[in-house]
Amino acid sequence: MRQSQLFTETQREAPKDEKSKNSQLLIRAGFIDKLMAGVYSYLPLGFLVLKKIENIIREEIQKIGGQELFLPALHPKENWLKTSRWQQKEMFKLKSRSGKDCSLGWTHEEIITPLVKKFVKSYKNLPVAVYQIQTKFRDELRAKSGLLRGVEFIMKDLYSFHQDEEDLDKYYEKVKKAYFQIFKRCGLAKQTFLTLASGGTFSKYSHEFQVITPYGEDTIYLCPKCKLAINKEIIKEEKYKCSKCQTKKLEIKRAIEVGNIFKLKDKFSRPFDFTFVNREGKKKLILMGCYGIGLPRLMGAIVEVCHDEKGIIWPREVAPFQVHLIPLAETSSHFAPYPVWPGSVIENTQKVKKISQKLYQDLQEARIEVLYDDREDKTAGEKFADADLIGIPLRIVVSERTLRKNCLELKQREKKEIKLVRINQVKKYVK
Amino acid sequence: MRQSQLFTETQREAPKDEKSKNSQLLIRAGFIDKLMAGVYSYLPLGFLVLKKIENIIREEIQKIGGQELFLPALHPKENWLKTSRWQQKEMFKLKSRSGKDCSLGWTHEEIITPLVKKFVKSYKNLPVAVYQIQTKFRDELRAKSGLLRGVEFIMKDLYSFHQDEEDLDKYYEKVKKAYFQIFKRCGLAKQTFLTLASGGTFSKYSHEFQVITPYGEDTIYLCPKCKLAINKEIIKEEKYKCSKCQTKKLEIKRAIEVGNIFKLKDKFSRPFDFTFVNREGKKKLILMGCYGIGLPRLMGAIVEVCHDEKGIIWPREVAPFQVHLIPLAETSSHFAPYPVWPGSVIENTQKVKKISQKLYQDLQEARIEVLYDDREDKTAGEKFADADLIGIPLRIVVSERTLRKNCLELKQREKKEIKLVRINQVKKYVK
Repeated sequence: MRQSQLFTETQREAPKDEKSKNSQLLIRAGFIDKLMAGVYSYLPLGFLVLKKIENIIREEIQKIGGQELFLPALHPKENWLKTSRWQQKEMFKLKSRSGKDCSLGWTHEEIITPLVKKFVKSYKNLPVAVYQIQTKFRDELRAKSGLLRGVEFIMKDLYSFHQDEEDLDKYYEKVKKAYFQIFKRCGLAKQTFLTLASGGTFSKYSHEFQVITPYGEDTIYLCPKCKLAINKEIIKEEKYKCSKCQTKKLEIKRAIEVGNIFKLKDKFSRPFDFTFVNREGKKKLILMGCYGIGLPRLMGAIVEVCHDEKGIIWPREVAPFQVHLIPLAETSSHFAPYPVWPGSVIENTQKVKKISQKLYQDLQEARIEVLYDDREDKTAGEKFADADLIGIPLRIVVSERTLRKNCLELKQREKKEIKLVRINQVKKYVK
Repeated sequence: MRQSQLFTETQREAPKDEKSKNSQLLIRAGFIDKLMAGVYSYLPLGFLVLKKIENIIREEIQKIGGQELFLPALHPKENWLKTSRWQQKEMFKLKSRSGKDCSLGWTHEEIITPLVKKFVKSYKNLPVAVYQIQTKFRDELRAKSGLLRGVEFIMKDLYSFHQDEEDLDKYYEKVKKAYFQIFKRCGLAKQTFLTLASGGTFSKYSHEFQVITPYGEDTIYLCPKCKLAINKEIIKEEKYKCSKCQTKKLEIKRAIEVGNIFKLKDKFSRPFDFTFVNREGKKKLILMGCYGIGLPRLMGAIVEVCHDEKGIIWPREVAPFQVHLIPLAETSSHFAPYPVWPGSVIENTQKVKKISQKLYQDLQEARIEVLYDDREDKTAGEKFADADLIGIPLRIVVSERTLRKNCLELKQREKKEIKLVRINQVKKYVK
């Protein structure tokens, strides 16, 4: 994409009411805009990142047999009365003109359970795993952490249906692996830890995926040997020790919860009377699992972990573009009102432009996503500052100085070192 | 995809309260499920169609320079007070726990105008075109036409910003062409007509894209010569004649509005005081256009137009799969408890299965989307009835009878004729 076409611009300062690093950087770099507390718009750059994360999740969930569907945000009261969750205080409620009581979904067990029940009658139809990537609403009183705690947010919610605990356990382990794969592809391999959490009424434990970062909202207790953590609730309820090796030498860390997985068992199948006929011809209650990932929160967590004092450093697979191509012209004039002589500023500018254009086309043809900074009213300093703030993994600078040596400057966002690479070698280097 | 894995099943009867052809067929075939009046879930098959339509729209809007973003559904009251549209009776309203008045967006002028204003200051930044594919809410009192009139529905809304009327007019014509291209790719080329509509307060005219079908909710007056239509409102307001050739010989047709385009001019830039500095250094109000397509409505219109008494007939580009591969086994048993002898039922069944499996893999490797009816408890009649109802464009039947001649049966959903094609020729035929 040509940067001159992008309608957003970077901003020097973040709004004063933005206290979190993720929203400060994402707003300044033009990825998001705040509409009200906990409610953000995704601008073109932010939308691209969101789509990257979405596709990683989609690929990994499809690998474990998830079927994608799309459920409504608007729910009838009846469904929520069945599970006695209508009174949930974070749930937005509204009434239609015809007098119907509705709510805005913050989760979808109350919708998916009766829906799958319509089709699944026998053990032959099991297991089933369905998921969606869809907008949720939660009436948060304190939405102050940028993308980490949203009032409106996109979520991947996966629900699985099983004939017995063994099958549920098996699938639960599959989801665990898929989740680690997702967070790894999002650049958080080193920071993400499986964390034992309280399971609520029906299961003893559930699991959270916590990303360690100094500004996390949660506190976890990490066993450095087992690489397993336990959360605050568990610490309160039980003894202070690693759930695996029993050591009491735990490290206290701040962290962000980027995913959670739950064995619901018959918590929802019971109120909806969702039974199936088993191999022996007997009616049994379906057992369920549910598995969530908040996409904005994951995006926010990536930024909390991957940034420096100059801006964001996107991990490759979630970056809005792979390459930031920056021509440095010595003049901002793009037409020549007088004859061009060899070696003149104008001739050099035209050469820089021509080579940049060509490279932009070549890279695009090689299916590499490029943000091409063709803006003519910006200085080199402004372009570099914007590139550092936006955080695309690889910066390629085309300038008259290095063109003399038939070279371009390549710099990885997270490194200090600048490499001089021959023009005809650039494509190979990028791949 | 293996049909045995699909958690939905076809249904013989549509629910009694579904009066429209589109929802009857889509529910029976397992594409959608009704949660409440005007609120539908998209099941795996329906989700695939939705994604196909989404991608067609995305491609065509990107070709005319649209930048994709994603705006919230939850809006603060302040924005709607600015334009005096807070009282709009179809708008859902709600209050947060902290006492904030909000609404659910049924359109996004009130959000996009102040957002683009933050970045666009000069004629140099213009024109700008931004769009999203996002869920809208509308408190409809009569949501009785299946996907044609939703309370919750996904919409593509595009907004354009211009420095003068000439530029707005130019872009408006570009959108017209893009829209025709979208509806053509959705299989509605012959049925879609540009229709002159009333423009509201600020423009004399707007345009609708109407799809002619006997069960349409709208009435349009079509000039058969010019292929242009005018809508009911215009007929009331003005003289009854073609806007181009002035003939009064108009045909009265039932139609579904699948898109509309509006010149908003300064209707929204004025209340939001969205000005820019023009070439002469003077402050001027931005001029806007807005352009909508409801995705579920388009999906519903396709079904209204493309079906027969047996089921849906998906146009190729929006079909959930390109090929429905149907092996016909003479027995439903899939293991052999006794020795297999040549020419036996079991040997033939195994041959049918082996060849189907191979073809399923080959087609997938050739990037052709296949629904593979590997269900073993269904008769040939049931499989054919399901295939006709689901409506995938090409049906390939693998049976012992034609395998003797080294052939498979190919049938296009919309045709009666069945073709015998040699196995090694099938892939070529499909492409």
